Amino acid sequence: MANFDLISRLAHDSGGKIIMLVMDGLGGLPRPSDGLTELEAARTPNMDALAKAGSCGLSIPVARGIAPGSGPAHLGLFGYDPLHYEIGRGVLEATGIGIEVKPGDVAIRGNFCTVDGNGLITDRRAGRIPTEEGAKRVELLKKITLPDVDITVEAVQDYRFAVLLRGAGLNGAIADTDPQVTGAKTLPARALKPEAEYTAKLVNQWLEEAANVLKGQEPANMVTLRGFAMEPGLPKYAEVYKLKAAAVAVYPMYKGVARLVGMDIIETDSHDHAADEFKRVAAIWNDYDFVFCHIKYTDSRGEDGNFDAKVAVIEEVDAALPILTALNPAVLIITGDHSTPATYKAHSWHPVPTLLHAPGTHMPDRAQSFGERECMTGALGQFPAADLMPLALAHASRLAKYGA
Amino acid sequence: MANFDLISRLAHDSGGKIIMLVMDGLGGLPRPSDGLTELEAARTPNMDALAKAGSCGLSIPVARGIAPGSGPAHLGLFGYDPLHYEIGRGVLEATGIGIEVKPGDVAIRGNFCTVDGNGLITDRRAGRIPTEEGAKRVELLKKITLPDVDITVEAVQDYRFAVLLRGAGLNGAIADTDPQVTGAKTLPARALKPEAEYTAKLVNQWLEEAANVLKGQEPANMVTLRGFAMEPGLPKYAEVYKLKAAAVAVYPMYKGVARLVGMDIIETDSHDHAADEFKRVAAIWNDYDFVFCHIKYTDSRGEDGNFDAKVAVIEEVDAALPILTALNPAVLIITGDHSTPATYKAHSWHPVPTLLHAPGTHMPDRAQSFGERECMTGALGQFPAADLMPLALAHASRLAKYGA
Repeated sequence: MANFDLISRLAHDSGGKIIMLVMDGLGGLPRPSDGLTELEAARTPNMDALAKAGSCGLSIPVARGIAPGSGPAHLGLFGYDPLHYEIGRGVLEATGIGIEVKPGDVAIRGNFCTVDGNGLITDRRAGRIPTEEGAKRVELLKKITLPDVDITVEAVQDYRFAVLLRGAGLNGAIADTDPQVTGAKTLPARALKPEAEYTAKLVNQWLEEAANVLKGQEPANMVTLRGFAMEPGLPKYAEVYKLKAAAVAVYPMYKGVARLVGMDIIETDSHDHAADEFKRVAAIWNDYDFVFCHIKYTDSRGEDGNFDAKVAVIEEVDAALPILTALNPAVLIITGDHSTPATYKAHSWHPVPTLLHAPGTHMPDRAQSFGERECMTGALGQFPAADLMPLALAHASRLAKYGA
Repeated sequence: MANFDLISRLAHDSGGKIIMLVMDGLGGLPRPSDGLTELEAARTPNMDALAKAGSCGLSIPVARGIAPGSGPAHLGLFGYDPLHYEIGRGVLEATGIGIEVKPGDVAIRGNFCTVDGNGLITDRRAGRIPTEEGAKRVELLKKITLPDVDITVEAVQDYRFAVLLRGAGLNGAIADTDPQVTGAKTLPARALKPEAEYTAKLVNQWLEEAANVLKGQEPANMVTLRGFAMEPGLPKYAEVYKLKAAAVAVYPMYKGVARLVGMDIIETDSHDHAADEFKRVAAIWNDYDFVFCHIKYTDSRGEDGNFDAKVAVIEEVDAALPILTALNPAVLIITGDHSTPATYKAHSWHPVPTLLHAPGTHMPDRAQSFGERECMTGALGQFPAADLMPLALAHASRLAKYGA
């Protein structure tokens, strides 16, 4: 994002407190019966009151027409242009299952595959073995050691797992070992830069050991490694925004992205409901300038195609909202990371309804309730998601004037 | 601005005439009593009629969330991306008190300070001496001469003054001489590039003389110099827009910025009211393609926090407006350089209400009057301020088609 340097230059380390409440996949499309979207159909008196009082608009996660994954969508919300800053696949995978990735680490996505007696791949996905079968074989992989390197291996899902290497002098510039076709051998790890030769050598040692420990474990008797990546070195919230920031989320992947931008991760329970998460925000409210709170199940129900269930999640969030408003944040933002219309059953590119409530600094507009069509009349217009953080800081009186 | 090259390539040197009327700090926020902003509360039948007939929208001065100073805000209105083009502090200070800065000049901000017998600073602002005390000492500084260089020194306010050096081979890449702390000596001028060594040597000679002439003038017995800057070499209106342009403004700083983009500065009286300024526009109307007319007091009253007085300024402008509309400009734009809500008492980041009236080429929209909320429904949407000049040229039939 062009203005990132500017923002870090103008940000004060004092001012009002900010809550950013993200309902994953919030945006929707109308159901045929009455033409209402999930958010419009939901009974949301608390959000409606905030929308009526404050500023509304629609955020564009990455660019018009682009349906984002959760990684880039959250980077955008956090103010990082998702086309400029990228979280490598391996890091996203590791982060997504709760493995902490630190600077200098190399994170890798692994697939189990089936090879024949000549080492030729017969199935690139090992017959899509179930997660528990994958986990058993991950236990075998965990036994492999390498000199001077700590290795973490964890099952992800089905035939997928994640690997993290930690040690001095590692480099992630390594090509995938998956030949992308059956009938070929798995490829050795090849360094894409001279600096990665050492790491490639280690990875090849590991692959040799992996072939040994998986011998006889058909259909998952070999592995391919993909998406080699290093911690992306994103500028941190404390540096760029001068914010002490915390994240309340139940899914590891959102905690992971929040950690990569320097937020403290607040302990949660995977069974937390909206009210539980909001109580966790309240519990730490005195210690932070900025809290990101993530609600997962709007997206899940949208992907299920279950319109009514998505409405129910939104209503549950609204009912719990007084726990947050009682904290009197200077700025309360409610938005989503992208749209996941239940009628579409997938992430979509539609701009995301957004409300910004900041008594004293927000511009009230004509939006009377929180919903896609009301947001179209709002004071924020349609804006890149990455502009939301500058707007949040401005409304919290945390940004100096630019120039004289 | 990304399209600046494009615009200069497409601009004709013929077409309709344009007036850009800028009410400084025009944008506001609602007052609690009735929820109306300054512009909405003001009785403005003339502007309302233009808004109703023409196109409305909201301009974003620099970027979302950024409250701009007057320099960058005006650069934006003049079509120069304020994040790309910068007017150095020294130039803005000199320009702001009416010193003309030419290419090759070095402009500098000066502060009087207090030093003890050992030359250590005891007060970086010389006890904040009043302007008349500063002016007396400026008279002493005016006596200093340097070989081959013309020196201008003028009082600004309190302990502040401006210096302009004119001569061959000068360079502004010089570090501030203010050590930023008390108990330290003032720093010598240090060149930041080899090309500036000659200038630094001259400045140090001048500083030595300054220490001599200020001896015994406690509390203002020494100076620090900051914000060394050269004329920014902005592309000029005649080149990029093919416009013969003039500026009618009462404050030196706006005249200064207008001069830097190549406008002719029309003589004004510092007591001019809106009607007086508009008459000056009428008087020169035959000689120019483009007139920028600047109203200062909307901003001043906003910074005072005086809602009613800001409303009164807007109403005065509206009452005088027939003087401008009688000229039948092809394009009349009415806007502000940024918002200065009376409730906020400072420049703010809120988008600025803008109307563009160009009979025959404008797109009428649903805005029925001139105000923030009506502009949200307008044909221009929310747009970067730097896009306003291309829009003005287009509506005046001064831009060729791009491509075949």
